[in-house]
Amino acid sequence: MADTLQRLEATIAARALADPGSSYVAGLTARGRARIAQKLGEEAVETVIAAVSGNVEELTGEAADLLFHLLIVLRDADVPFDNVLAELDRREGQSGLAEKAGRSR
Amino acid sequence: MADTLQRLEATIAARALADPGSSYVAGLTARGRARIAQKLGEEAVETVIAAVSGNVEELTGEAADLLFHLLIVLRDADVPFDNVLAELDRREGQSGLAEKAGRSR
Amino acid sequence: MADTLQRLEATIAARALADPGSSYVAGLTARGRARIAQKLGEEAVETVIAAVSGNVEELTGEAADLLFHLLIVLRDADVPFDNVLAELDRREGQSGLAEKAGRSR
Amino acid sequence: MADTLQRLEATIAARALADPGSSYVAGLTARGRARIAQKLGEEAVETVIAAVSGNVEELTGEAADLLFHLLIVLRDADVPFDNVLAELDRREGQSGLAEKAGRSR
Repeated sequence: MADTLQRLEATIAARALADPGSSYVAGLTARGRARIAQKLGEEAVETVIAAVSGNVEELTGEAADLLFHLLIVLRDADVPFDNVLAELDRREGQSGLAEKAGRSR
Repeated sequence: MADTLQRLEATIAARALADPGSSYVAGLTARGRARIAQKLGEEAVETVIAAVSGNVEELTGEAADLLFHLLIVLRDADVPFDNVLAELDRREGQSGLAEKAGRSR
Repeated sequence: MADTLQRLEATIAARALADPGSSYVAGLTARGRARIAQKLGEEAVETVIAAVSGNVEELTGEAADLLFHLLIVLRDADVPFDNVLAELDRREGQSGLAEKAGRSR
Repeated sequence: MADTLQRLEATIAARALADPGSSYVAGLTARGRARIAQKLGEEAVETVIAAVSGNVEELTGEAADLLFHLLIVLRDADVPFDNVLAELDRREGQSGLAEKAGRSR
């Protein structure tokens, strides 16, 4: 499953160009950046509520929804998902050094 | 970078058990589920604003923050990240079938 | 218009007891606290986006939606709106004293 | 307390013009619309969590924070609070007619 998000990113890129009536991704993309960002925000609210409620099954589903819409936002803004992973790798490197030096992240 | 999130998940699991004063992850985890979920929500708000503002560099950084805190929430709720990816794979399978059948997702 | 929110609070309290099929407030209330809170969160996301986008008409409408759903949340939790106003008055008193003393709020 | 929000709106308008170092409102306003909207979003996340957690005292305080920051956003966008109340009155009138006609809101 290591490449699930990479495959999903490619699928989203392909679907974004499809007929808005035939694909959820194309339909949402056609409504513009603000509406895509709004959906991301709504999925985050649902993830927060599932986390606080302690419903593990719901949290799993909402986290999947959140990731899916994060990839749609990134695609719409032409940000490769690898750039986000590279940023995480960069911070991890810095943070590892910080931990070694005894400082908190 | 395909395994960045898996490595980060392992790092978070290790740090969550550390001294709360020595690690951001341990400190946040010690404050409890509601506070971790709150941070996830705050990072989502920042991601939404970066997306609407069209600032690509900011969006990249905020998306990294959002993923980082999503992994902390999942760890705190004992949800393996692979379960979330499996849920995305499952939906992708269903969605692929739906696309073939000409229905929207 | 000074009593708009007080009248709306009374209307919401009356409608919450109505048939869920006949009233938006009753229908939402019947779905439970998590769902009411989710709607509040969604309206907040829309308000944030309208504010950042600088669309004054949209911001006015979203702020109205946000207030409406805040009153439904408060009603569901049996928190009188006057208690929230009293809290604001209490802080305003403290803040006024702080300003006089030359300290920031 | 009927005029608490109107008085708070006036206080915020006055403080927004103060020295950013001497007032919370002035300091936040100086950081720009996106940062003010972000704070509104963060307070909404805290209100959602307090509502779901069922902590009445926390909910009262978070609702106060949310209203306070909503007024700062409206002030920054030059939207009089009365315009938001007028929108609520307008909907209430429409909704009352709808209820009489037996339709849901």
